[in-house]
Amino acid sequence: MKIICKQEKLIKALNIVSKAVSPTSTLGITKGILIKTEGDMKISLSATDIQISITTAVDAIVNEKGGVVVSARLFTDLVRKLPAGDILITADEENIVVVKTEYSEYKLQGKVEEEFPRMESDESGRQLRIEKEEIRDLINGTAFAASTDESRGVITGVLFELKEDKLSLVALDGFRVAIKREKSEAYKGESVKAIIPARLVREISKVIADTEGENEALLDIGERRIKVFVEETLIRVNLLEGEYIKYNDVLPKENKIKLVVGRNELLGGVERAAMLRSEGKNPFVRFSVEEGMLTVSSRADEGRGHEKIKAQKTGEDLEIGFDARFLTDVLKAISDDEIQMQFNTSVSPCLISPVEGDRYEYLILPVRLSTVSV
Amino acid sequence: MKIICKQEKLIKALNIVSKAVSPTSTLGITKGILIKTEGDMKISLSATDIQISITTAVDAIVNEKGGVVVSARLFTDLVRKLPAGDILITADEENIVVVKTEYSEYKLQGKVEEEFPRMESDESGRQLRIEKEEIRDLINGTAFAASTDESRGVITGVLFELKEDKLSLVALDGFRVAIKREKSEAYKGESVKAIIPARLVREISKVIADTEGENEALLDIGERRIKVFVEETLIRVNLLEGEYIKYNDVLPKENKIKLVVGRNELLGGVERAAMLRSEGKNPFVRFSVEEGMLTVSSRADEGRGHEKIKAQKTGEDLEIGFDARFLTDVLKAISDDEIQMQFNTSVSPCLISPVEGDRYEYLILPVRLSTVSV
Repeated sequence: MKIICKQEKLIKALNIVSKAVSPTSTLGITKGILIKTEGDMKISLSATDIQISITTAVDAIVNEKGGVVVSARLFTDLVRKLPAGDILITADEENIVVVKTEYSEYKLQGKVEEEFPRMESDESGRQLRIEKEEIRDLINGTAFAASTDESRGVITGVLFELKEDKLSLVALDGFRVAIKREKSEAYKGESVKAIIPARLVREISKVIADTEGENEALLDIGERRIKVFVEETLIRVNLLEGEYIKYNDVLPKENKIKLVVGRNELLGGVERAAMLRSEGKNPFVRFSVEEGMLTVSSRADEGRGHEKIKAQKTGEDLEIGFDARFLTDVLKAISDDEIQMQFNTSVSPCLISPVEGDRYEYLILPVRLSTVSV
Repeated sequence: MKIICKQEKLIKALNIVSKAVSPTSTLGITKGILIKTEGDMKISLSATDIQISITTAVDAIVNEKGGVVVSARLFTDLVRKLPAGDILITADEENIVVVKTEYSEYKLQGKVEEEFPRMESDESGRQLRIEKEEIRDLINGTAFAASTDESRGVITGVLFELKEDKLSLVALDGFRVAIKREKSEAYKGESVKAIIPARLVREISKVIADTEGENEALLDIGERRIKVFVEETLIRVNLLEGEYIKYNDVLPKENKIKLVVGRNELLGGVERAAMLRSEGKNPFVRFSVEEGMLTVSSRADEGRGHEKIKAQKTGEDLEIGFDARFLTDVLKAISDDEIQMQFNTSVSPCLISPVEGDRYEYLILPVRLSTVSV
């Protein structure tokens, strides 16, 4: 293999594929990046930790076809520290990789291309085009709510559900449910469901953010795998097996109390109140919902405090307690100026959503007021 | 106590004094910040971990004189999260501190002012005025070379030496010596020496960087304490006791080989070469000094490499090895485009300095070439 490419293009591509490099993997080869020539004008870079693989293309002058696996850490660090400009990369039969610029020359022990793990042959599934901003929005609005307890199976994943003209993403962890939906006539067709590990969904969002140029991504949802094509990058992620929770059953049928409140004001108030937490306890806050006013209060060994936030209320007054983290998560994930909170009683779930429409729903369980003890 | 001040001014002052808050201290009160009224228009904030104390002033409307100690962490976090604008702070006889804005009200349990530790009465010492940029330059060019091994006594400190028209800062750790000097007619007067813990010298540099307005700092070097006045901030640091190493004795009297080389090129080359390090070993690099060219090379299990850097040489050719970290430290700390390296043999120290003058000298011990094994 003998190629010449620009440092500045190579480092962008390395930043993309290295999101699939597992630093903790014990499989030596998954700490590597496969460099491979693709015709006369391009090379591809690939990395995988078996569950996720990312491949991207880089413009290059290919003088000699071939492929080789290099240490991801060493190669990325080296390229990052090289000056902008041309880099000559060669690999010989012993997989010695030479990285050469005008004044630098490094010889790294590579590995044979064939050792690099391949994903099984790729059946095609249900395809849809979606704007990059939209899919990132869907992911960033839900993935944080998935369970981080690896023993919890499907709920460590994010459900992608395509049905009629709607793509829904759902994540839950037993204390909250986040649902985000996007409608488009273009989505109509075969229904499909897929559960993608939340950790890898977040990597997909990051890779999409790193790609330039095109506005759209192509999703291909298969039986065992989701593929995301964006620009010259292909991400493949293995799906979680199993049946997802019937999340629609937990959504409240009616809501007696409605509150409309400024998102930023609420976020600031909850963040400040949450600073008062007793050692070893979660940061609990108490909501007092009254006419025209929401009071957020907290108490800990160190002191106590409250925040008054203007709000429009319909329905009864209410006292209810929450784990502040579950509130700040959602208030950071949405961008609306105002949000709607809907309640029934102090022991039933609260539904947070935009003031209009059903494009986002976030259900959160309260904590007992005796726990909050304000 | 009853005061009103602006959130944006208060948070700047908190950022300054919290550099003296010891997060690991077991003395409860040193995790606190003393808030005290100073006349009708100002308050002072103070923090200390006994070795260092920082006091700064904030414009305020003082409605009722007084003072109180609050939890540094909680108070700083709270003020940081409050919106810009007026904050009303009161303290009552029980030291309950109320922090109030238009919509927020927090009550924190404070402590009585008298519990806050005082530095002993402050004798005045030798004073000198110095530009903020200059004192920061002196500190940042030397403090990194001090020993981090707390058992090493005086060499965990930075020597401040004022003699004739010269202020010198010196730090060393047994492998290297960094000396930076600043000349000014205004420095003439009584000679004085002081050893300041390197950790705290760095805090002084940071605090100076955080202050706005005035261009000068006033140093007051006493028997047991250095005081730094800058703007409305006073930093007091306890000196290390003991006699500093006679560092002038280790500076080479003559240097047979001289090399002038671009600082950035050398830094880039050494950083790249240093990435090739065998596990558990320091990142060694080998210098081959030849006519017109410096070659920096390295070798590890993963590969090997070299960098060619244009250089002007006088004297013999030379092969010499270094711990790369001791080189990158100094190459990052100075700003000259070109530097001079002076050598005698492959086992004697190398002197790094600007091409002209003696305002900076950095002496570094080589490692045996057999260790480098390139």
